[in-house]
Amino acid sequence: MAGICDRLESLGIILPEAPSPVAAYVPAVQAGSLVFISGQVPMSEGSLLASGTVPGNVTLEEATSAARQCGINALAVLSAHLDGDLDRVEQVVRLGVFVASDPGFTDQPKVANGASELMEEVFGDAGRHARAAVGSVGLPLGASVEVEMIVQVRD
Amino acid sequence: MAGICDRLESLGIILPEAPSPVAAYVPAVQAGSLVFISGQVPMSEGSLLASGTVPGNVTLEEATSAARQCGINALAVLSAHLDGDLDRVEQVVRLGVFVASDPGFTDQPKVANGASELMEEVFGDAGRHARAAVGSVGLPLGASVEVEMIVQVRD
Amino acid sequence: MAGICDRLESLGIILPEAPSPVAAYVPAVQAGSLVFISGQVPMSEGSLLASGTVPGNVTLEEATSAARQCGINALAVLSAHLDGDLDRVEQVVRLGVFVASDPGFTDQPKVANGASELMEEVFGDAGRHARAAVGSVGLPLGASVEVEMIVQVRD
Repeated sequence: MAGICDRLESLGIILPEAPSPVAAYVPAVQAGSLVFISGQVPMSEGSLLASGTVPGNVTLEEATSAARQCGINALAVLSAHLDGDLDRVEQVVRLGVFVASDPGFTDQPKVANGASELMEEVFGDAGRHARAAVGSVGLPLGASVEVEMIVQVRD
Repeated sequence: MAGICDRLESLGIILPEAPSPVAAYVPAVQAGSLVFISGQVPMSEGSLLASGTVPGNVTLEEATSAARQCGINALAVLSAHLDGDLDRVEQVVRLGVFVASDPGFTDQPKVANGASELMEEVFGDAGRHARAAVGSVGLPLGASVEVEMIVQVRD
Repeated sequence: MAGICDRLESLGIILPEAPSPVAAYVPAVQAGSLVFISGQVPMSEGSLLASGTVPGNVTLEEATSAARQCGINALAVLSAHLDGDLDRVEQVVRLGVFVASDPGFTDQPKVANGASELMEEVFGDAGRHARAAVGSVGLPLGASVEVEMIVQVRD
């Protein structure tokens, strides 16, 4: 069976260096078989892919792409935590997706799909997760999206 | 001992079909003994029980009823996950409750009680959970409330 | 090795009575080795240390102090749950930090550091956690900050 690294390559996804936390916490903590990944913003090559609220400052499409980037960054953190062995992923358990929203914006699920569909593309059935997607008045650094994740891993 | 199904009946609660996710994720994921239920909106017979922000668009009372409906939908998802056997619930562990709020609205706990009290009515002590209730600028589909849940279950 | 109680004393931190929930839920629930602490607001001696949004109603500094108070209250709840034995803490796993924010405020991470740095001061490496910090349009009782926590404990 082809591994997750091959899958990432076939999807054209190159994981970046795991982003550093912007504050006094750590990117990932494991408790038992659950790995908790800190909230990720859509950093790409040192700058935010999308900032400000949807739809006033960024379009639905831009925010959805940004959510995918948050997911890629979460995978980078997870990969670093697992010493590169993403084949140890048993199940993506939960995504928490926060979307910086203008009053009246209610398409948070479409934005969040940018991260959710990534997980299914990468892990197949093991990438199908529970999720909460909500609007936020504002997010760290002005990001348009923030994604946190819980993943179950094998030894 | 009367089971949870009897309790639901005595409370006059009929669980609906488990609502389908509105996007690319699944309603429930189990990791070990913990079941993570995706964020539920107050859908009832195909339409939202309450939409828009509190108190501008819906009253505190309407939002509280909507939170109860979110809880009922979460129980429907849980029941489907457990093949109908809600007696396998060991403990409701945590509710995350998001309330679509106008600036200045701070009664999110009262709204969230709509879901919290339901859990205690249905499960007794096993329904007493940890909780975070927060305001949100806007929620999926324009819902006034969204409730996610973590539940510990027996084999 | 000096225990956590000594550490708290050397930090000049006196844990208050565990705050009572403001609604129909409980302060802490344990599932397996994970303790879920309900969202805590910055109550101190019966009143909120900071209320309203940042920066319109409270400064960044005041909100950061308030986040520390939320963390102290979370420790009080945890201590009560553990019958006073905070030395049973294996790892602080995750903090969820909600900051009542005016539109345009994006320094939620700095505010959240008030709670995060407390955990590291108190528990050292065992206090380094995963985290999600987000903006909220409004929080319970008008609090400027709310902090929830997951902690792994030993028997």
